[in-house]
Amino acid sequence: MRYKLTVAYVGKNFKGWQSQKDVRTAQDELEKGLSQLFGEKVVVNAAGRTDEGVSAIAQTVHFDNDKEMTPFSLIQAVNFLLPEDLSVVDARIVDKSFHSRKSAKRKTYVYRLYVSPYRHAVYDTFATQIYKMPDVELMKKVAQSLIGEHDFVAFSSTGSSAKTTVRTIESIDVNLNGNLMEIAICGNSFLYNMVRIIVGTLIWIGLGKLPCDTIDKMLATGNRKLGAKTFPAIGLRLESIEY
Amino acid sequence: MRYKLTVAYVGKNFKGWQSQKDVRTAQDELEKGLSQLFGEKVVVNAAGRTDEGVSAIAQTVHFDNDKEMTPFSLIQAVNFLLPEDLSVVDARIVDKSFHSRKSAKRKTYVYRLYVSPYRHAVYDTFATQIYKMPDVELMKKVAQSLIGEHDFVAFSSTGSSAKTTVRTIESIDVNLNGNLMEIAICGNSFLYNMVRIIVGTLIWIGLGKLPCDTIDKMLATGNRKLGAKTFPAIGLRLESIEY
Repeated sequence: MRYKLTVAYVGKNFKGWQSQKDVRTAQDELEKGLSQLFGEKVVVNAAGRTDEGVSAIAQTVHFDNDKEMTPFSLIQAVNFLLPEDLSVVDARIVDKSFHSRKSAKRKTYVYRLYVSPYRHAVYDTFATQIYKMPDVELMKKVAQSLIGEHDFVAFSSTGSSAKTTVRTIESIDVNLNGNLMEIAICGNSFLYNMVRIIVGTLIWIGLGKLPCDTIDKMLATGNRKLGAKTFPAIGLRLESIEY
Repeated sequence: MRYKLTVAYVGKNFKGWQSQKDVRTAQDELEKGLSQLFGEKVVVNAAGRTDEGVSAIAQTVHFDNDKEMTPFSLIQAVNFLLPEDLSVVDARIVDKSFHSRKSAKRKTYVYRLYVSPYRHAVYDTFATQIYKMPDVELMKKVAQSLIGEHDFVAFSSTGSSAKTTVRTIESIDVNLNGNLMEIAICGNSFLYNMVRIIVGTLIWIGLGKLPCDTIDKMLATGNRKLGAKTFPAIGLRLESIEY
């Protein structure tokens, strides 16, 4: 049987998704629970990694196992074994042709920010603070340059193992509700730190800390240094993956 | 000088708002920070208590102190002294006639829920799980009986010290977004556990676990036992207070 699971976890409690020695990662916790449930070592294949501190409500994995369980029983049982800050929210039995990464059509990440000169005890649990209100209309306008297929090398951190830095962004939506802002970015796949660099650069343009043509120049030159710093992990959440 | 402060805190980390011996409360933490800042014991008057586990982004307090500080300096300094899970988000110097509780015109609480047969590691940090989708249109309809001035004794837990159980509810809004639900209740003031009993009763009616006329009967008879159990604190947040 090939199982497809959708997984949620609280990013700030993990050193990222991917299995690592001597630190707590979401993959390790999930595999520990599944291995206990199936009575043998289970290794999962994920749609992608999330970095240290990044949350997810739609991380997707697949794995094969001979034992047949109904999705309902599997989720109930594994959630009992998993820690509080990680849970399986959906399960399906899928065809052997399904692959969590290769079959993914698009992913949506949402980055959350709040605007205030002061820190906020509640918002700090899921959003990044910015001190002044940026020009949201300008952000929306310059974001349009990112839509489509581009070489996003200027929007990636070194250390990426990707073969190509060409990616396709389908949409970027900026929503402001009071002093809370959500930036939703939908694309086929993302480079290392790509969403956090895009968000930072949009915000800095909106604040007038970077020129309006920064994004066009970054795309044209591939120069990472023209952009903003990589914004903090706390605001970022993997929101959905479509297959 | 009379100072008015707006305070945010993460409910699950506190044994409620009100000062108590030997347990961690939001009031004690705030007063500790303010006392350190002003160099003398500061006692604050709050708009109201919040119960153990209930969050706030708009708890409001006032206190008097001879030292004059600008709101900006006060907030920056006290937030440095306060713990991570509590912060001051606004400060004003107000007239002596201002009183955090007596001057309040209306308060809005929002209760958050998610619908799923399975627990959710991320949503569990701020919302209450319900297992099946209730009839939201029915909930909206029966909620209308609560609008206006009523004796809400059937919607309060024993142990309330209120002189009268008559309160006015101005509006109840139920919003569903995917499997996340928000119930916003706006009124002049609230009895002990009132919001959590209203929410529970609306949900149980929506699920068909209680008859449609439950709210009318509760208002008519004052019988708490006709309603649902008090729903968990985790979903509740004090969202705003208007003066």
